[in-house]
Amino acid sequence: MLPRGRPRALGAAALLLLLLLLGFLLFGGDLGCERRKRGGRAGAPGCFPGPLMPRVPPDGRLRRAAALDGDPGAGPGDHNRSDCGPPPPRPSKCELLHVAIVCAGHNSSRDVITLVKSMLFYRKNPLHLHLVTDAVARNILEMLFHTWMVPAVRVSFYNADELKSQVSWIPNKHYSGLYGLMKLVLPSALPTELAHVIVLDTDVTFASDISELWALFAHFSDTQAIGLVENQSDWYLGNLWKNHRPWPALGRGFNTGVILLRLDRLRQAGWEQMWRLTARRELLTLPATSLADQDIFNAVIKEHPGLVQPLPCVWNVQLSDHTLAERCYSVASDLKVIHWNSPKKLQVKNKHVEFFRNFYLTFLEYDGNLLRRELFGCPSQPPPGAEQLQQALAQLNEEDPCFEFRQQQLTVHRVHVTFLPHEPPPPRPHDVTLVAQLSMDRLQMLEALCRHWPGPMSLALYLTDAEAQQFLRFIEASPVLAARQDVAYHVVYREGPLYPVNQLRNVALAQALTPYVFLSDIDFLPAYSLYDYLRASIEQLGLGSQRKAALVVPAFETLHYRFSFPHSKVELLALLDVGALYTFRYHEWPRGHAPTDYARWREAQAPYRVQWAADYEPYVVVPRDCPRYDPRFVGFGWNKVAHIVELDAQEYELLVLPEAFTIHLPHAPSLDISRFRSSPTYRDCLQALKDEFHQDLSRHHGAAALKYLPALQQPQSPARD
Amino acid sequence: MLPRGRPRALGAAALLLLLLLLGFLLFGGDLGCERRKRGGRAGAPGCFPGPLMPRVPPDGRLRRAAALDGDPGAGPGDHNRSDCGPPPPRPSKCELLHVAIVCAGHNSSRDVITLVKSMLFYRKNPLHLHLVTDAVARNILEMLFHTWMVPAVRVSFYNADELKSQVSWIPNKHYSGLYGLMKLVLPSALPTELAHVIVLDTDVTFASDISELWALFAHFSDTQAIGLVENQSDWYLGNLWKNHRPWPALGRGFNTGVILLRLDRLRQAGWEQMWRLTARRELLTLPATSLADQDIFNAVIKEHPGLVQPLPCVWNVQLSDHTLAERCYSVASDLKVIHWNSPKKLQVKNKHVEFFRNFYLTFLEYDGNLLRRELFGCPSQPPPGAEQLQQALAQLNEEDPCFEFRQQQLTVHRVHVTFLPHEPPPPRPHDVTLVAQLSMDRLQMLEALCRHWPGPMSLALYLTDAEAQQFLRFIEASPVLAARQDVAYHVVYREGPLYPVNQLRNVALAQALTPYVFLSDIDFLPAYSLYDYLRASIEQLGLGSQRKAALVVPAFETLHYRFSFPHSKVELLALLDVGALYTFRYHEWPRGHAPTDYARWREAQAPYRVQWAADYEPYVVVPRDCPRYDPRFVGFGWNKVAHIVELDAQEYELLVLPEAFTIHLPHAPSLDISRFRSSPTYRDCLQALKDEFHQDLSRHHGAAALKYLPALQQPQSPARD
Repeated sequence: MLPRGRPRALGAAALLLLLLLLGFLLFGGDLGCERRKRGGRAGAPGCFPGPLMPRVPPDGRLRRAAALDGDPGAGPGDHNRSDCGPPPPRPSKCELLHVAIVCAGHNSSRDVITLVKSMLFYRKNPLHLHLVTDAVARNILEMLFHTWMVPAVRVSFYNADELKSQVSWIPNKHYSGLYGLMKLVLPSALPTELAHVIVLDTDVTFASDISELWALFAHFSDTQAIGLVENQSDWYLGNLWKNHRPWPALGRGFNTGVILLRLDRLRQAGWEQMWRLTARRELLTLPATSLADQDIFNAVIKEHPGLVQPLPCVWNVQLSDHTLAERCYSVASDLKVIHWNSPKKLQVKNKHVEFFRNFYLTFLEYDGNLLRRELFGCPSQPPPGAEQLQQALAQLNEEDPCFEFRQQQLTVHRVHVTFLPHEPPPPRPHDVTLVAQLSMDRLQMLEALCRHWPGPMSLALYLTDAEAQQFLRFIEASPVLAARQDVAYHVVYREGPLYPVNQLRNVALAQALTPYVFLSDIDFLPAYSLYDYLRASIEQLGLGSQRKAALVVPAFETLHYRFSFPHSKVELLALLDVGALYTFRYHEWPRGHAPTDYARWREAQAPYRVQWAADYEPYVVVPRDCPRYDPRFVGFGWNKVAHIVELDAQEYELLVLPEAFTIHLPHAPSLDISRFRSSPTYRDCLQALKDEFHQDLSRHHGAAALKYLPALQQPQSPARD
Repeated sequence: MLPRGRPRALGAAALLLLLLLLGFLLFGGDLGCERRKRGGRAGAPGCFPGPLMPRVPPDGRLRRAAALDGDPGAGPGDHNRSDCGPPPPRPSKCELLHVAIVCAGHNSSRDVITLVKSMLFYRKNPLHLHLVTDAVARNILEMLFHTWMVPAVRVSFYNADELKSQVSWIPNKHYSGLYGLMKLVLPSALPTELAHVIVLDTDVTFASDISELWALFAHFSDTQAIGLVENQSDWYLGNLWKNHRPWPALGRGFNTGVILLRLDRLRQAGWEQMWRLTARRELLTLPATSLADQDIFNAVIKEHPGLVQPLPCVWNVQLSDHTLAERCYSVASDLKVIHWNSPKKLQVKNKHVEFFRNFYLTFLEYDGNLLRRELFGCPSQPPPGAEQLQQALAQLNEEDPCFEFRQQQLTVHRVHVTFLPHEPPPPRPHDVTLVAQLSMDRLQMLEALCRHWPGPMSLALYLTDAEAQQFLRFIEASPVLAARQDVAYHVVYREGPLYPVNQLRNVALAQALTPYVFLSDIDFLPAYSLYDYLRASIEQLGLGSQRKAALVVPAFETLHYRFSFPHSKVELLALLDVGALYTFRYHEWPRGHAPTDYARWREAQAPYRVQWAADYEPYVVVPRDCPRYDPRFVGFGWNKVAHIVELDAQEYELLVLPEAFTIHLPHAPSLDISRFRSSPTYRDCLQALKDEFHQDLSRHHGAAALKYLPALQQPQSPARD
């Protein structure tokens, strides 16, 4: 049982060393460089028979060279395998990899995030994303990456609208529109010092480490500049139907969903002129591009075949209907990148579509917070704000009974604004946006809310990544909701045990685009007439311009969960009189709305001014530039009260509107509130937050803040729902 | 721009071929076998300097041989790197890999599932899991794998209780208890034809393809039989504290969280005797094992060092406090297996713990349904039932308006019974279990339910994997719920758009362990006295034994969401009289409970018999072997009605209990019901289901089923919540 293999092992090691040295002598010690120098397309595309071939096929034959001359018999399964040679050398551990993506609009922005999640899941290198975006996508993605704070990911934006003129002259029939064509102008649009870049369509999903793809740059000859996977459909063969006239291509052509670009070489080779000349010439006989940039790339390559380095098929497994992709992935041991390149996307007909869909869903529903993981041993600049955040978190004391509160306050939530297509309301001087926040358990309020509020809304939703997809399906299934383009949904991703109610309100408030906002809660349904009435009142009172005021919308509640909504103040008062309605929190916390003075409201014909009092928390209409909610109030309690204190401290008049009302509907207590009602530390922590709030208030408002001190030291309001 | 590298490339290819041939000549064409024959421990452990070394370290030196003789200066970072040689040959594409895991109890069963999810996520080979389990784990895991239906995964169970006697003589202080020691007896416990197996602790997480680990078997010499990663703590160096006396080990010893076992060789070498002799001898001077099997493995290896093949450290990155693991993973480019080998598990102190926790959470929350993916090109026997299921699904017509219903009916949900620790109730002849089902939005009912029902409960929860973790935290945070060991929670994993209400009820019903069940709904709170009263009534009436009956518990409802629960029938009747309570669905669907005859119940002093009538759906108490719910009713509507029809058809008497009552609490309509109330096809599909139900009823009960025909053709009840 004692080791007895040492001499033999030493001999083997010596032989291995000999082989290694031989390799070094023959290849000059840098195999990657040597390969580049070898040039041409020796062996199969991206498929070099190496000295150690771990997967010699059963019949032992070496595969023949690539059928780049268009041999139609050579399907992707025949020569595009990834497992036919040693893996190319990986990029060095901390090498920065560059990725360019063109992205426009709300839906593509969601797609890009799924793509990026899959990329980040497997990556081990720092990444620099170059995003060519329209204004919508930039707004979404800038906020998203800013709040995502992924270490070792840099993001640069390029204005797609400025590039439009360079491609808009090309007639195009492809669903990707003008933006698809923009991949053609990347060599000039990206910074001149950028030499290598991987270009991706928004509809690809990674199933492997992107550095393996980057490593394929090492296979380029001295003159090759574009790495592409062969097309996996018969499109460019031109025999799909009678009079099918595709653009010219080598053999079955190449797919441009995944491209390795040597930008330096393309610039040197006069790419700008090259593709334009080719496109202009082809457009003399062809009416338009059918497949956008891909037609033009293929036409250029047909003319200059030396530019292209074919890549193994697994790097772009194309899931159109009837593609030949199966011949690729069923032979390969691995799938590297899946490309949903059918307009039908996940509905594509492919007998393994379940497999691919599962892969896609994995990243669609993956908790993006989990990707905030550092790269070991790659020193990289932390994302903006990350260092301060780390320091603040490090200073927290885990033994502090309010540790959970403090940690939650510091949590930076990923924010995806305008998650769904949204049309900003046309600018109107007295328009008002309803602002509210919710989580999954209140989705069923949305339809009713839409019926009660015909104006713009800005809603923050606190969701997990998986719930965001359920939410998407919920909206799509509702004709009422799907028809409303003036409701903006902003997803704030869940993290931590406490509900960040005021952070959510601030997200929704910041995204409101009208000059005025109605700060509501999701369990309230406004009077049917409220939207029109508020706009008229704002105009009449000169809110914001002549008068610094907050308009109070009196709040009521029903305890019955079946309830017929009053159509007027008269009807409301009748319900109030028979006890079918109450003023809000009449039974358990009348202080919250007492200053509204419901008795006066009954009779009022004109707006009337009321004074702030302790614990007042009315629903108000204010100009959009009103103070933000204090994000320290997480969980339940004092979150709205503090905001009204701030309004009062800033000398907003409180004006009650005589015809306005909103009604709270009953619901089961939320999970969060059940969890914390029983916690004794909860109340202590809330008092600590209130004390700190008052300290800040004194700092900002000086002696004027003294007014609020007794209110802050009173027994606090019951935990709110 | 034309290819000009061909001749040079051909030359390079020829040289590569030469190297390849040289390799073949020297190593006999089978590098794996040859390596085995080389024996000993040439090069670093698991770290063979190959002919092509893609990652020659910057200083170019070859690392020295492993410090197996216990050189304390050789930390894991020094020689345990994974990137110091070519990857070993992978197992062939469809090779079956064997994995053994010892698992006992509820909590370990959850851990095993997370481990298996991580393994399945990356695997590309068929797997055979050999699970050594106690009765609890077997019950859980057998059901789980049966319903998971993962292609190309076989599972065998071995009875841990039968193995106990082989290890129970060893005094042991480790938290893994007796079960940890069972890894020692695997060579005799596993089938004799099994030669290779990977043995895993339940607290490891894969971050890579297990076939890469399996491939390391090829590195074993002729005599090596145990592949292990060096321990990453100083434990076995014996200098942690004064009088620290660890078991003997080579150097810092080995960790047994991940083991490659050559079972064939161990059996040949007389392992059974070997480890017992060593353990007995050491126990003469040592009081007990501190680290269970690991102490004994190390002591045996110290005596027979030729047995061990050291594995690269990345295959068992050990996250105890103060381990040296960082030296391993910060140098390695890859992490392969993470081992949470501290009793603190996720709370372990490690400066990168966030990174590791994110990895763990990825699989903890990963939707296990997405792992039901086939292995391309590896023909494997489908899981039991999978073929019939595929056929049934294939026969569905996507154009059928009820397609969603039919697909949902056929969906096999993953089921994790007794998700949390549970103690079966002691056998009592008249005991009764409350049976119900719920989803996340009703969790807040559980505490109240526990206060109202002091007896055993069997609850099915319809959750995603991520929600199951939220649920776990919810229970742990509630002293009321955490204290109840007689409530069994069975997680049924979500899949598909319709709520599988009757499938859930059947899961909860099948898991009830008392002779009687109270079939309730989660929104009902039973009278405080109901549990005792039901047991007395069951005994008195001779339910099941003398009398085939269903005992009816009259149902009431409150429309107020703040409500003081009546403590007696008298109090309940008083509330009914003042309109604070109603009989259940009095306003919108009185037919559902009219046959209970509330007027008679008011006065009743003794149980009375009532007759079935159309749409009757009372809450009943029945023997556990009662008919199951019809799983075709998914979504909302007719699900309980059909069950009562079946009870009546099987001639169960319906006996109303005079002192029993249960009260429905109000809640917002669930998301599912909101989604479908608006759908016009919903009602049509429900009618189609009812028609089919009646056809089946006629088949089973013949002419007797005619009685129910008019009821089935009536306008159906409103969709239920």
